Amino acid sequence: MNASVATQRRAVAKTSRTSTPAPVGGIDLGGTKIQAAVVDAEGKVHGDARRPTPTTGGPEDVIAAMAEAMLEAAQKAGTDTSKLGGIGVGAPGSIDEGTGSLANASNLPGWSEPFPLAQRLSEALDTGVRLGNDVQVATDAEARLGAGQPYPSLIGVFWGTGVGGGIVLDDKPWLGRGAAGEIGHMVVKRGGARCPCGRRGCMEAYAGRRAMEAKARRDREAGKKTDLFKIAEEHGRDRLTSGIWARALEHDDPMAKKLIDRAIKALGAGIASAVNLLDVDAVIIGGGLGVRFGAPYAKRIEKRMGKHLFDVDTPPAVHVAALGDFGGAIGASLLWRPAPSR
Amino acid sequence: MNASVATQRRAVAKTSRTSTPAPVGGIDLGGTKIQAAVVDAEGKVHGDARRPTPTTGGPEDVIAAMAEAMLEAAQKAGTDTSKLGGIGVGAPGSIDEGTGSLANASNLPGWSEPFPLAQRLSEALDTGVRLGNDVQVATDAEARLGAGQPYPSLIGVFWGTGVGGGIVLDDKPWLGRGAAGEIGHMVVKRGGARCPCGRRGCMEAYAGRRAMEAKARRDREAGKKTDLFKIAEEHGRDRLTSGIWARALEHDDPMAKKLIDRAIKALGAGIASAVNLLDVDAVIIGGGLGVRFGAPYAKRIEKRMGKHLFDVDTPPAVHVAALGDFGGAIGASLLWRPAPSR
Repeated sequence: MNASVATQRRAVAKTSRTSTPAPVGGIDLGGTKIQAAVVDAEGKVHGDARRPTPTTGGPEDVIAAMAEAMLEAAQKAGTDTSKLGGIGVGAPGSIDEGTGSLANASNLPGWSEPFPLAQRLSEALDTGVRLGNDVQVATDAEARLGAGQPYPSLIGVFWGTGVGGGIVLDDKPWLGRGAAGEIGHMVVKRGGARCPCGRRGCMEAYAGRRAMEAKARRDREAGKKTDLFKIAEEHGRDRLTSGIWARALEHDDPMAKKLIDRAIKALGAGIASAVNLLDVDAVIIGGGLGVRFGAPYAKRIEKRMGKHLFDVDTPPAVHVAALGDFGGAIGASLLWRPAPSR
Repeated sequence: MNASVATQRRAVAKTSRTSTPAPVGGIDLGGTKIQAAVVDAEGKVHGDARRPTPTTGGPEDVIAAMAEAMLEAAQKAGTDTSKLGGIGVGAPGSIDEGTGSLANASNLPGWSEPFPLAQRLSEALDTGVRLGNDVQVATDAEARLGAGQPYPSLIGVFWGTGVGGGIVLDDKPWLGRGAAGEIGHMVVKRGGARCPCGRRGCMEAYAGRRAMEAKARRDREAGKKTDLFKIAEEHGRDRLTSGIWARALEHDDPMAKKLIDRAIKALGAGIASAVNLLDVDAVIIGGGLGVRFGAPYAKRIEKRMGKHLFDVDTPPAVHVAALGDFGGAIGASLLWRPAPSR
């Protein structure tokens, strides 16, 4: 089988997944929240609902919360889940798209072994369920309906608790052997800071919210000044959320400024490395921090990328994700829609 | 136009480039030497010749040397260049595949402006000439005829004077917007060593032969002990060639060992970063140093990659390039052959 035939077969396999004109459901299953939405064929959201992700229990509890959120979103959209064309789920961890099972979801309670997520949710909501990688479906959403629409090839960078990545090449998701897109674990400083993944020098070790918070706590314990934790307390938060970082920056908090500068330098180097390798048309920056900080910070990342881009004459376009908080859920709904025409 | 149609059109455009059962010529245009070969449809070399790359003059001088090498290779193969199905050239710099012109070839004398290489060489040798990127055609050769044959997706890493990269995804070269594959300029140490490209912390700044030689000279001037330059002198070399590095390692030269260790760490981090992003099946290590050092050093690079791979359960296969010195010329000849069946 030659290359073009292989590609055609894959394309056929992809488009033969039935499409439907009916609204479909999308669920973004995150470590903090579950976002459900009912989405029409144009990507418009007709109803949405959220639930906090359970922090105790196991897969059954998480699936119960997902079902609740989806039932509420359907109700708000004036429909019933059994009338949806299907439900897509963007999930973290190791996904078996064929069997619809999820494993190694370290941000979900008691979810290391494979669990038949698609089957159980399908039983609960009386419609078909498809699974996709959370970051990849969010990237697909930006590519097809968001800031990436003009570009055949792009990288999605989701700057949040961690730093996730999704890749679209010639209008098709690139998944590698199933684990592509780990842009947060590209090395930007060999022998550098310890990453939450356990390795050293990853981009996420400098730019991920979890790693930045750990660094802030260490620096505070070492006697460095910051209002980060005071601001968090005032807002009733026990973690440094994207909003807390944004507020601290507004107050010119020295530690917040320093750590965000450090994050931006790491993002600039890591994203530029990815562009040097792939020469994509565009970079879309999303995620909790990426969307919260918006265009001015995307511009700062773009500027730092410039220090490392090999082909300086044709830098990629850099945009903030346009679908915001709904990107993940909309992207998940696209698991039921064939690729749009270009 | 949807994604699959776009892919089909590209595939058609690619395969409609006429193939030929006749032997074709391949020329690897390097900064040091010009390697020409006559290659049959199975990738077998029937005649070959080399010329040193002119170090003075301009494009006309380089093209004259290329023509000489190709005429000699054809003669050895018992044919005439006019009887070849065509000639492919793998060249460094900015290539316009449509017009067959080459520009910004910084390793070639007086070759910054675009020059109609394909046309002039075609006139000199009385057959068609196609241009491709030197590193990409060498990667294609390994993918189709060499160590990469079993793998649909791979990265070629050419560890030599610089560190070049080529990408094959699902059996097709990935060129991005024409400049993909600059794996040597992925950042492995932000704020680190100065690279010959002028930037800091690139993989090539630690692993490229040119950068390693400059570092060795600086370290020697700073009083550090090494026999590297003595060995070079004994072998009549004014540069630290791959062979000189290999001999110094055989003599346990401390500086050579230290700088090669440093190069291997950088290669491990940079290649692992690329794999974390793309999740390819395999990594093929070629280039002057890569081929000279062979499997034991590829194994060392693989081991260092292990420290940075995110998906530890399914590391890519790592192999040394199998086509050796002829890889570039054979790859160039493939510009006249459609992709083989898999």
